[in-house]
Order: sequence, then C-alpha cells, then structure tokens
Amino acid sequence: MQNVLKPVNRNGEFFPGIPKIKYENKFAYKWYNAEEVILGKKMKDWLRFSVAFWHTFRGTGVDPFGAPTKFWPWEDGTNSIAMAKRRMRANFEFINKLGVDRWCFHDRDIAPEGKTLQETNSNLDEVVKLAKTLQGNNIRPLWGTAQLFMHPRYMHGAATSSELVVYVYAAAQVKKAMEVTHYLGGENYVFWGGREGYQTLLNTDMEFELDHMAKFLEAAAAYKRKIGFTGTLLIEPKPQEPTKHQYDWDAATTTNFLRKYGLIGDFKLNIECNHATLLVTGCHHDVETARINGLLGNIDANSGDAQTGWDTDQFLTDTREATMIMLSVIKNGGLAPGGLNFDAKLRRESTDVEDLFIAHIVGMDTLARGLRYAAKLIEDGSLAKLIHKRYSSFHNELGALIEAGKADFEMLEKKAMEWGEPTVASAKQELAEMIFNSVL
Amino acid sequence: MQNVLKPVNRNGEFFPGIPKIKYENKFAYKWYNAEEVILGKKMKDWLRFSVAFWHTFRGTGVDPFGAPTKFWPWEDGTNSIAMAKRRMRANFEFINKLGVDRWCFHDRDIAPEGKTLQETNSNLDEVVKLAKTLQGNNIRPLWGTAQLFMHPRYMHGAATSSELVVYVYAAAQVKKAMEVTHYLGGENYVFWGGREGYQTLLNTDMEFELDHMAKFLEAAAAYKRKIGFTGTLLIEPKPQEPTKHQYDWDAATTTNFLRKYGLIGDFKLNIECNHATLLVTGCHHDVETARINGLLGNIDANSGDAQTGWDTDQFLTDTREATMIMLSVIKNGGLAPGGLNFDAKLRRESTDVEDLFIAHIVGMDTLARGLRYAAKLIEDGSLAKLIHKRYSSFHNELGALIEAGKADFEMLEKKAMEWGEPTVASAKQELAEMIFNSVL
Amino acid sequence: MQNVLKPVNRNGEFFPGIPKIKYENKFAYKWYNAEEVILGKKMKDWLRFSVAFWHTFRGTGVDPFGAPTKFWPWEDGTNSIAMAKRRMRANFEFINKLGVDRWCFHDRDIAPEGKTLQETNSNLDEVVKLAKTLQGNNIRPLWGTAQLFMHPRYMHGAATSSELVVYVYAAAQVKKAMEVTHYLGGENYVFWGGREGYQTLLNTDMEFELDHMAKFLEAAAAYKRKIGFTGTLLIEPKPQEPTKHQYDWDAATTTNFLRKYGLIGDFKLNIECNHATLLVTGCHHDVETARINGLLGNIDANSGDAQTGWDTDQFLTDTREATMIMLSVIKNGGLAPGGLNFDAKLRRESTDVEDLFIAHIVGMDTLARGLRYAAKLIEDGSLAKLIHKRYSSFHNELGALIEAGKADFEMLEKKAMEWGEPTVASAKQELAEMIFNSVL
Amino acid sequence: MQNVLKPVNRNGEFFPGIPKIKYENKFAYKWYNAEEVILGKKMKDWLRFSVAFWHTFRGTGVDPFGAPTKFWPWEDGTNSIAMAKRRMRANFEFINKLGVDRWCFHDRDIAPEGKTLQETNSNLDEVVKLAKTLQGNNIRPLWGTAQLFMHPRYMHGAATSSELVVYVYAAAQVKKAMEVTHYLGGENYVFWGGREGYQTLLNTDMEFELDHMAKFLEAAAAYKRKIGFTGTLLIEPKPQEPTKHQYDWDAATTTNFLRKYGLIGDFKLNIECNHATLLVTGCHHDVETARINGLLGNIDANSGDAQTGWDTDQFLTDTREATMIMLSVIKNGGLAPGGLNFDAKLRRESTDVEDLFIAHIVGMDTLARGLRYAAKLIEDGSLAKLIHKRYSSFHNELGALIEAGKADFEMLEKKAMEWGEPTVASAKQELAEMIFNSVL
Repeated sequence: MQNVLKPVNRNGEFFPGIPKIKYENKFAYKWYNAEEVILGKKMKDWLRFSVAFWHTFRGTGVDPFGAPTKFWPWEDGTNSIAMAKRRMRANFEFINKLGVDRWCFHDRDIAPEGKTLQETNSNLDEVVKLAKTLQGNNIRPLWGTAQLFMHPRYMHGAATSSELVVYVYAAAQVKKAMEVTHYLGGENYVFWGGREGYQTLLNTDMEFELDHMAKFLEAAAAYKRKIGFTGTLLIEPKPQEPTKHQYDWDAATTTNFLRKYGLIGDFKLNIECNHATLLVTGCHHDVETARINGLLGNIDANSGDAQTGWDTDQFLTDTREATMIMLSVIKNGGLAPGGLNFDAKLRRESTDVEDLFIAHIVGMDTLARGLRYAAKLIEDGSLAKLIHKRYSSFHNELGALIEAGKADFEMLEKKAMEWGEPTVASAKQELAEMIFNSVL
Repeated sequence: MQNVLKPVNRNGEFFPGIPKIKYENKFAYKWYNAEEVILGKKMKDWLRFSVAFWHTFRGTGVDPFGAPTKFWPWEDGTNSIAMAKRRMRANFEFINKLGVDRWCFHDRDIAPEGKTLQETNSNLDEVVKLAKTLQGNNIRPLWGTAQLFMHPRYMHGAATSSELVVYVYAAAQVKKAMEVTHYLGGENYVFWGGREGYQTLLNTDMEFELDHMAKFLEAAAAYKRKIGFTGTLLIEPKPQEPTKHQYDWDAATTTNFLRKYGLIGDFKLNIECNHATLLVTGCHHDVETARINGLLGNIDANSGDAQTGWDTDQFLTDTREATMIMLSVIKNGGLAPGGLNFDAKLRRESTDVEDLFIAHIVGMDTLARGLRYAAKLIEDGSLAKLIHKRYSSFHNELGALIEAGKADFEMLEKKAMEWGEPTVASAKQELAEMIFNSVL
Repeated sequence: MQNVLKPVNRNGEFFPGIPKIKYENKFAYKWYNAEEVILGKKMKDWLRFSVAFWHTFRGTGVDPFGAPTKFWPWEDGTNSIAMAKRRMRANFEFINKLGVDRWCFHDRDIAPEGKTLQETNSNLDEVVKLAKTLQGNNIRPLWGTAQLFMHPRYMHGAATSSELVVYVYAAAQVKKAMEVTHYLGGENYVFWGGREGYQTLLNTDMEFELDHMAKFLEAAAAYKRKIGFTGTLLIEPKPQEPTKHQYDWDAATTTNFLRKYGLIGDFKLNIECNHATLLVTGCHHDVETARINGLLGNIDANSGDAQTGWDTDQFLTDTREATMIMLSVIKNGGLAPGGLNFDAKLRRESTDVEDLFIAHIVGMDTLARGLRYAAKLIEDGSLAKLIHKRYSSFHNELGALIEAGKADFEMLEKKAMEWGEPTVASAKQELAEMIFNSVL
Repeated sequence: MQNVLKPVNRNGEFFPGIPKIKYENKFAYKWYNAEEVILGKKMKDWLRFSVAFWHTFRGTGVDPFGAPTKFWPWEDGTNSIAMAKRRMRANFEFINKLGVDRWCFHDRDIAPEGKTLQETNSNLDEVVKLAKTLQGNNIRPLWGTAQLFMHPRYMHGAATSSELVVYVYAAAQVKKAMEVTHYLGGENYVFWGGREGYQTLLNTDMEFELDHMAKFLEAAAAYKRKIGFTGTLLIEPKPQEPTKHQYDWDAATTTNFLRKYGLIGDFKLNIECNHATLLVTGCHHDVETARINGLLGNIDANSGDAQTGWDTDQFLTDTREATMIMLSVIKNGGLAPGGLNFDAKLRRESTDVEDLFIAHIVGMDTLARGLRYAAKLIEDGSLAKLIHKRYSSFHNELGALIEAGKADFEMLEKKAMEWGEPTVASAKQELAEMIFNSVL
C-alpha cells in the first residue's frame, strides 16, 4: 500500500519556527487506502474519519496535577478572535494533509467567549464564516456540539443544573450551536452530558434532574425540526467523570432514558470506546447494545486504559479491538451519516507537532486494519458458521412458535417431560478465538 | 432496647452434638424491636426481613479454590428427601428463633433432583407440603424462584440458552416453581438471570438471546395470571458473574429491556446491594433508579466488598449504607409486598452454628439502625430543606413552563440574553455530609 | 461536648466582601475536644491535625473538564508576592479559628515562581519569613515538600526524568524546600513522587529511572544530615495518577524500594487513605503494612470514592474507616513527630467560604469519633481477646520453636504423622464485626 | 510453517467413546515451530512450554454458581488410584501429541488423599512412579507444588494458619511434594500462597502471620539444600482470591517480603499474567518488576479478563500482550530453568476433548507469534534507539557522577543556577506505539 498523505505545499505560516516535518516512510499509511474497495464500499466510506478540533487544537496537556505542556508554534498565547482564526487555518491545513474529509467541534473551542452571550455568538459567527470557506467542497463537520461543562456556570450541570438561569443559558447556547452546525453542513449534532449527573445523592433530586434533561432534549429536537436541520441528534454515554455518576452512564441506561421519555425516535447514540472501557462493559459491548436497539449513530474511536480509572482518550492502537468494532460497523451497514471521530489526544508528554500526525496515522491505520480483518472474517465465514450452528436447534417449528410468542408454559412443560434430560453442545469459545486470531 | 429473640423451646433434635447456644446479651438485638413504631409503622413492617434458605442451609463454604467447610450437625451427608425434610425443620426452627416472618428459596435447594423431571417435581411437592405445615400462620415465603444455573444443562443459560431443549426444560421448571410459590403463599416470584448472559461476543448472538429472554418472561407473566398468582414478578439485576456479561446488568439496563419488550407492567426489580457494588454504581444508586422508574419491588439486603471484584454476599454491617437504603425505602412508602431478604452467607471460615445467628442478628440490627437514623434525618428535616433550597430557583412560572414542556429554545434564548451571566450557589455537599453524620 | 472553635476576633481584612460567617451550633465540634484525655494522652496529641495549604488556599476547583469555580474574597487574581502574603495571612487566620496547631505546604503554592531559580528562591524566602512570624509559638509545619509535578519541566518526572537538566533542577528545588521547612520548624519533610512513574513501558527504562530515584533520595538524606534537620523524611505512596504507573505504588512497593537501595534507615512512609482506595488494598491495610514494617510516619487523612477510579481527595467522613485507622495509630503509640494531615479538598461545587470550615470540622470530628471508638474497643477488650484466642494454639513449646526458626521439616513431619487430621476453629468474622459495630 | 503436532499413534484407550479427533489444518500450529532458531536459540528453548495438570486434567468446570460440566471419556467418576493412573496416562498422551516437553502439577491433583497422611504419601508415591516411567527421557516437570488450599483444614491458610496443627501438617505436605518433584527431575518448585492472606483485619494479626510464613519458607529452603534439590524455589504472587488480601499481592510486595526476612537468595518469582491483570498493574509490569529485581524465574502464561474482577485463567490469545512478555523474556536471556506454564483452563462451556487441543494450540501459537514479533522489534532496533535517545542527556560526566552517588545537592544546585530553565523533549509515545504496531 502506498502513502496517501497529501503532498500539501505548506508555506510554513501556521507552523513557524518548527523544523520541517519529514513524512518518512514510517509515518505513512500502511493500511489505510481511502479509495480501495472493501466489501463493496470504499474504505473512506466505511471509515468516515473525523478530526476532533478540541483535542488536536485546544488540548494543552493540562491534567489535574500539571500545567500545559503544548506550545504549538501557531499559538500566540492569546484567546483572541485573530488567534481563533489562525488556529482554524491550522486545523484545515492539518485535515488536508491527513487526507480526511470531516471534523468535529465544540462551540467554545473554536471561538472565544465574549462578555455577553450576544458577543459570544457574534465571535462564533465570525470564526464559523471562515471555517465555512476553509471547508471548501470536500470537508464538512461530522458533528458539532455545545461545550456545557468547562465554565463554572455549568458546575451543577446544564439541563440538570439546580439553577433555572443555567438551564436557560444552556438552551440558548445549544440553540446557537445547532444553528452553526447546520450552517456548516454538519451531518450530526452531539449531546455529551458533560456534568449532567451527580456528585452525591445526599444533595440531589435525581428524578427532578432527569425530568429536566428530558424536557431540554425534547425542546432541542423541536428546534432541530424548526430550522430544517436533518442531521442526526446523538447522545454520548459516559459512566463517570467529571461527576461521580453521569446520567448517560452507558448505552443501555441512555436507551432506557430515551424510551421512558418518548425520545427514541429523535435521538441515536454516539458510542465512545474510551467511555465503555471506564464502564467495564467494553467498547464492543456498548456498540452492539446500541446496534441491536437500532441506535448506533456514531463512534468516537479512541481507547482508554483498562488499568486506569479515568478517561485517557488515547488513540486506538489495538488491532483486536478495532476488528471487533469494525465487525459491528459492517453488521450495521456502515455508520453514515455518522462516522469515526478521533476523540483522542496526544499524551501530555508528546510535544512535537509531528506527534499530531503520527498519532492520527496510527489511529487511522489501526481502524483500517480492523476493517480489513473484519472483512476477511466475514469472507472466510467460519465464525458465522460456528454461530449459526450453535443456535441451530431453534431452526424448527417449536423454535418458530417460541419466537412468535405462541409457546405457553403448559405446551413447553409437556415437551420437557417428553424429551427428558437435555444434552448440550460445547460453546467452542477457544475455536472462535482461534478463528479470530487466524485473520489478524 | 430489649432482646427480642424468641425463647423457643428447642428440643435439640436438629442441632445434635453441639453445645447449647447461649444467647448472651451481646448476641441479642440492640436495635431491632419488631413492634416498635417508627414514622407510623412497625419496624417489622418497614423491614419485612426474610431468611435465604440457600445461603443459610445449603451454603457449604465451597469457593473456586476450596472444598466445603461447613458440617452442620443436622446434615447427614446425603441428598435424600429425608435429609431435605430434616433440613426444612432446621430452617423453621432457625426462623422462629430469630423472630422473622419470611423466607426465600430456590426450588432445587429445598428438594433433591430426581432422575426425571416428573420425579423431581414429585420430590419438590413432598418437601413443600412439609414446609407449608411448618410455616404455620405466621411465616410465608417473601419469594420463591427456580434455580436455573447450577446444573450443567444450564451452562449456556436457560431462557437464553443456545439449545432449544434447555429453553423448554427451563420453562417447565419455572412453571412448577411458580406453582409451588403460589401454594406456599409466596408474596413475590423472582427471576435472577443466573447464566443469562455471555462469555464472549465472538460466539454469541446477543439480539437473538435477548429476544428469547423476553418471550420466556412474557410466557411466565401469562402463566402467573392463569394460575391466579397475585404476587409480584421481580427481576434481579447483576452485572457480572457467573458470565462475563449478565444481560440484567443493572437497574437501568433491566428497565430498558422491560420497556423495549413491553414487559414494564408485569415486572418490578429486586435490587441486590452486593450486585450494585460489583457494578460500581453502588447500592443506593440502583435502589433509587428502580424507585424513580416505579419499579422498586424488593431489596436483597447484603453487601459486597468494594475492594474485590466478585460477589461476596456478606451480611450488611455498614450503618451508613443501611441508612441510605432505608431513606429510599421510606421514600417508597415501604417495600410491601416486597421486603428485605438476607441474601447473605457466612464467611467460609465461620463454621459454628452460632455464627448463623450472629450474622443474622448483625444484619438485622444494622438495618434497624439504618431505619432509625433515616427516620431521624426525615424528622430533623435539615437535609430535605437543603435540597429544597437547592432547586428553589425553579419554583416559579418559567420553571413550571419548562416542566410542562412549553418553554421552547427561542423563548429561553430571549431570557438568557436578558438575564446575562448566571450566578450559581454552592452545592453544600460537606454540609449535607455533616447533617448526615450528625444522626449516625 | 462544647464548641472549641476559637473566638478569634477577625477584622475582616482577609475576607473582604463576604458576609460574616456565623459559627452556628451545628458547625461546632461535637466530637473533637483538644484537651480531653483518651487512653492517657490528649486528643490533640493523638490527632496532631494539620491544614493542607494547597487544597485549602490554592485549590481552584479546576478539573479535567472544568475551569476554576472558587473565587475567594481574599484573592485578587494575581500571582504576586503581595497576594502570596495576603493568602498566608488568611491561612493563619483559618488555622487559628479551627484551633489546629499544624500546617503543610508545597514550596510553589506559598510563593510564586520567578524568572530564574534565584528569583524564585528569593520570593520563597520573603513569604516564608512572614509565615514564620504568623506561626507564633503554637503553630508549625507538620511537613513541607517541594512541588515537582505542575510545571511542564517535570512532565517526565523529576528524579526519574529522562532529562539530566531536570534531575539537577529538582535537586536544587528540594534542597531549598528542605532548608525552608527546617527554618519554619517543620517536623517532617515529604516526598510525593508526583510524576515519578511511567505512561508506557514502550518508551521507558524502568530500572534506570528507579536507580536515579534512589540516588536522588540518598543525596536528600545526606543533605538533611548536613543542615542538621532532624525531622523525618517521608515517602508518600500512590499507585496511579498522574502517571499510569507511579513507582511508589503502595506501602509494600515503596518499602521494597527502600530496602533494595539501602534507604530504610533514612525514610518512613506517609500513607494517604485516598491513595490506598485507588489501589484497592484499602487505607487500613496500607497503614498496617507501614506499621509492621516499622515505617508508619504520617497519615494523610482523607478519603477516596470506592466507586471512582481517580483521586477525589475528599474529607474523611466515614466513622468506620476512621475507627480502623485510629486503631492502628494507637497500636503505633501515636504518630509523632508525624500527624494527621487534611490532604483533602472541598468538592468543586462547594464555593462558600463557610464550606472550608464545615469540611474541616466534619473531618476533625470524624477522626475524633474514630479515636473515641477505637479507645472504647481497646478498653472493652473483646476484640483483642478474640484475636488472642484465635492464635492461642501457638502459645506453647512447638510454637516457640517454629518462631525461633528451630523447627525443621523433618521434625514437623513427625508431629504431623503423630497428630493426624487437624481440627480447625471458626474465624468468627461476624462476631468480630458485631463487636466492632457495638462500639460505633 | 508446517504442522508440528506429533503423529502419535494413539490406541484410543484413554479416550474411549469419543470420535477420533481430526487434526485438521486449522488446528495445527501456524506460528510455533519448535526447532526454528530465533535470535540464536531454538523456539522451544525460548518458550519452554508446560502443560498444567490441574486445569487440563482436573478442571471440572465448577464455578461458584455451577456444577461440573466436563465429563471426559477417560474419567470413571471415582477418585481411586486406578483412576489417577489412567488419568496420568491421558496426561502424557496429551503432552506427547502437543509436542511439549514439560508439565506442572500439584501433589493432590495427581493422587488421591488417603485416610492418613501416611496413606496419602503412599498413594502419591505409586502414581509418581508411573509418571516417572511415562515421562521417558524427554519430558520432565517444569515444576511441582503442594496444594494447600482446597481441603477445609487450610481454610485459614497453611503457613499462616491460626492453627499450629495446620502449620505442622502443611510442612509435612510440602516436604513430601519437594521430594517428589526432585524425584521426577523437576526443574523448579513453586509456592502459590493459596490462602496465605486475610479476609478481614478485624480478626487477624498480620505481622504474626507474615513472620510464620517467613519461617516456613526458610525451613523449606533448608530442606531443599538438605535433599540436594537444585531447582529454583519460586513464589507466585496474586493480589486477591480466594482471600480478600493475599500476602503475596504482587511482585513488589513479595520482593519486599523476601528482602525483609532475608530470603532473597533462596527464592525467585513465578509471575502469572492473569494475577497481574486482577491487580491492575498488568502482566508486563510485573514481569519487568521481577526482572529488574533479579527475580524473574518463571511465567504462568495465561490471561485474565480486564473487565472482570476474578481470576479467569484464560489461555493467552492477545498477540500484543504476548509480544510485550516475550520482549522481557528476551531481555532476561530466556527463563531457564523456568519456562512458560499454561496455567489456563478451558471455558466452562467448552466440553469437547478437541477443545483441550485447540486451546493449547492457540496459546502456544500466540506466544510463538509474540516471540517472533519481539525478535523483529529487537532486530529492527528503532524502539531501542528511541529509548536510548530519550535518556542520552545522562551519557556524560555529570550523569556518571549522579549514578555513582557522587553528586550532592550543593553541586547540583550550582549547576541548576548556571543552566537555567530546562528544555524537555517529547516522550514520543505515539511513535513508540507506531513502531510496535508495525511489527505485529
């Protein structure tokens, strides 16, 4: 496979003072080949990669015990509109170089807050206008979202805040963020419940807060229809952090919420792998849970560390995990209009500009590899055959009755008495693992 | 408070060869007083304690690395019907001595399996008839259930087994267990999804299995109506163990399942504290989740170890946790027809008969203490006031509009522009903790 | 018990613009009574409380997803020396009001960094001089330490940095911090291995780094002797965070390190409860491990959340845990010259000045309660008797031979053949829990 | 690569009644090739595989919620000596078929307990004599051990039991197990601290118990020398399970214990991957910790599930993990006289005889792949170069002084003042991951 990094002729203005990045062979894609057809679809259409603006361009390396470590050459240390624009240009230069067609953003990451909401909105408009131009015909947002967790006003949540004035403010902010996403041609709009959760039940009315969250999302869906935005609304589950208990704990919890409040038609899920690692169900489980509930909308393709208890937002480098995920994506017929967003950040100690490229290339290559292996598994067919055989005892009349809800306990008891002690086949887990390993 | 252990005149036949248990002062209840009235209800009606037959009379001390350690004097080493009856007598002697009115059982723990299902059912009938007599007028099952996980036939699950013959067998077993529970005057019937789950998604069709589980429960609910059993059907969530992923993961996951398959009217939840510890949401969270979904049916009042990753089924001895749980129980107006079942076992190394008494007394006293403290908190009112004040900004016209779903984003944006930057009050978590601690 | 909050006549200059804090009855100590004698020692001498400057005066409420939320009235938004002094006055006003005799600090929290190390040291000297005056005769540092983790220069660690220049810089910083601690009459000096650890072994030479850490500590101990500082040097274990793997993982790991490098005579341990919760061994275990290795030097008396995977640094409010800890402290004959440092912070959402008081009062009262209960347990003697009895089979000649290393396998085999199958007594865990609960 | 499964001509007597296992191509080794030379050594000498008798021949599929599921055709349902011998023949047929040269055993798994220790020893002798014959010239034990945890006599531990008579019994049992291992030509002898730990500190004297454990091991080392057994004595750390806290928690804890009690010359460590997963340090970390303490003696090559909290003892199928482990093994110059023991069991639901073969083949192939990739990484050299460069600032005179312990704080402070603010290079974690991934 060849290097598909685009030979963008960069003039250096966004990366002043750094040595020229040499795209040596080892940094090139080895597995990703955008136009190659896999199972009847181009790789780029299966994968629909997106660069996350916040991690890539606003990640500073801050952690709970440390100050910023990233001092990108295009940053001037201000939070001005001029800087916001300069940063947006860097973003698109980066996206072009990677050869990716999509990006994701939070409203507050791309433009600075003003003294009033009016001023903030106007700042946002100015930067968004530039982004629209820079997008050109090929690039568009995979999704946009509102950042409702950094500012101290959101310390008790946004839609679930104990303060009416914050609920109101959050509604105004989401309204604007939806408009802006729509303007940029965004394909989806995401709700990550930043601080929608609690720190202790001792001071919390959970039912009250969940009711408010439902009303907020209902109003958002209504506004979406009003402005003619046809993108998907997505909720992104996360179990913990920053709150001790996030209301959108996992796919099942969020689905229950959507069902309870009659929101199931308006929303789908954005599954973030790293969040499912925190949760201990694992990414593949949560992706599958979303899928079989008909709600798999998008995947935030990162990874967590199974041995730490906080969100590490690492680039996904584990090919096994990538293969499992891509198996689900293929079963889902792809993710469009959703995609695979790199909600991943450089390690705090990775401080070279080239590290940004390396990290994305590893991430893209890992998922491309996952796609290739998943396709190989499907083409080989052994695993599907093994599963089909496991359940084959139901492929008959009684199985059909059961599945149609027509087999009552009396009928079944009669059968049980007649058949006697069941014999049960091996589950062949090790064989399944051998087959899986054989394609890697 | 006085010792309420009943001075049952035991003749020793079920505890041969052991020294007489002296109910010294220190083993007596210090906090539980069955008839005392708390918040308008007798303690025994708030607490509705139940002894779990399986742990107390069938727990052998086996663990994955060890053979049995319990050699109760009433056991003769056989699995005969005679032994089953002798054991049942010991059970009721124990329950009477404790002064408890309820017990819980699995079908297979109280009577031995025969060579055929017919024989097994007949064994069960024989033992159940004795139990009915021994119950007398005061004692009845809090709930019954079918044991669908020990026997190798259930190794792939019961309702979710890959084998049709096992699904059929399980239906027959549950049918009988429901009949027997009904016959004994049981107040509830429980489904703990023993092995309804998966070990790896590589060999599993999760959607297929969940569909089957739903059909099975639907048939169970139909059969309940058919036989006129009016007790509540309860599902008991557990995240992991014995399978890597149990389908009834937690309260929210199970509620989603019930909603998806239209089973919400027929089932409630039995929350087991120990399972919620495994889960990392914590017992109080899962109890509250069940409550605000209108599904809090019963509590298995045990505890897990926050520092181990498996089910320890310990007696609850933490007064803080007990107080939190009882706060929810009071909010729920009690648990009836559910109750507090001691799904808890002696440590493997506790091998004296008196340890059975000590453990139950500590468990009962801890929950009685929790009830007293919760009542004190409610009577004091400071915590309720703190919470009321936290949310008071919504107690006005706009708050009411929002809660009625009549505040659209445009209206809210106008308000936000008008009001400017929110000010936000302290959450007073430390004060809430101080108030909480002050009653303990 | 009476309120021992000292009626310090504050003139308001350090808390301008805030409403007068009313020390209502409910905020007063209910359990802590400094002068009361417990087991022959004053409560204040068992407890030796210390206020942590960093959390109380430099904690801003920042978390990985949020900006500062605390805007204390004495802060002017600058990082000037004037502000540092003003803050130091607030610190001592706070300490005096609480009635505590000790404080702890990091060098960089009390004085701002300058442009050079020389300037930084001179800033530090200026603020320290003021602190010395404000301390008066009653107050002194429980310990001082150097902050070697916030600044980006320390992103790869300090003593274990891959950069020589950082090792050198860290040595200079620790040298100064030790001098300053000595000058202020500090009783101990602490090393918390901020970023001494790794993020991945793929880019790390663990052996090289550990060797460097040993050399660094060796030099620190030599310098301590040189300047005549007689306080204890303490290492504070933590398993994870900020790095994926902190070298000072827990008490046992750190003790192994000290033994391997011959540092055991020069260092003791500062056990932080919250860190042991992260670790899953639990605080009490780590305190006991330090104690039986002769290394229990100090306790950072906070708590973590058993259900989150990151460091929450909460005030300890669980009386059971406090009782366990105080049992160990009593067994240790107290902690002096160490003590109980409140390495704990307000929740991010607690933003009132009075919350600082409430939190410390709850923390102090909880530990005071723990002390009272532990003393009660010891005076009661039942638990000690239970343990004594458990091991009593060794209280004879053969037991003595074994313990003296004089019982070889041949002698023991002969005995085993002679004695036959062992009988083994119940461990009485539930009884131990009953006894424990009875004092709470 | 070709199939190296040996075409052993089996006569069927040990596998009666089962269909002939077809060694189809897909069950053959794809990556393991015993005689192939990698980095100057044969694969079989790097890998030194061993079959674990207990999991493979005594694993029944029992779990805390389930009865046995394995009914191997060679089992007759008795625990007789005749059955023990028949099983031993099956063991060697299996080992021969796999083409492995080593096996591991617990004393009690290979021969039944008698009514007395004398009888038990004699049973053991009889079976061991047969094993000696069946071993022939090519096969020998990688290690033997005594099973000190299943029998109820060991419920409080063996060397750390509260009962003198149990300590004595355990000594006799270990004495015999060492003799038997020696007789069979075993290369190592292992101590896994089955129940050496505690369930609660409330009833435990941890110091007393650890002192006893040290005396026991001291006596074992003395006896080893006495009988001229030259194999290595190995301790196998595990953090939890069956006890809440196992004293041999991890590599560092165990090393501290060995150092404290002066046992460091007599013992090395047997690192089990699955145990390190439970521990959250991860296998590779614990292997490296053992290595840099000079104590890496053997590896139990299995894996746990990062998402469950109990010991799953799965076969290792993750190639990334295998590569990391083999990197350490190569750095260690191999493991001899230790090796890679498959302390791994079939899933409970895997019930075909062929599953035993499949599982071992996947395990062997995965480690063989790990060896190949690790060798490739080493031959490529990029990762080593990256690490070398990271630490290169220490490759000079001052670095040498520091490492020699000759750089005191005054000298270093002078340097720091002179050099000014450090500059710090990127840690290149993503590049390291890219390099790592490139060989897989």
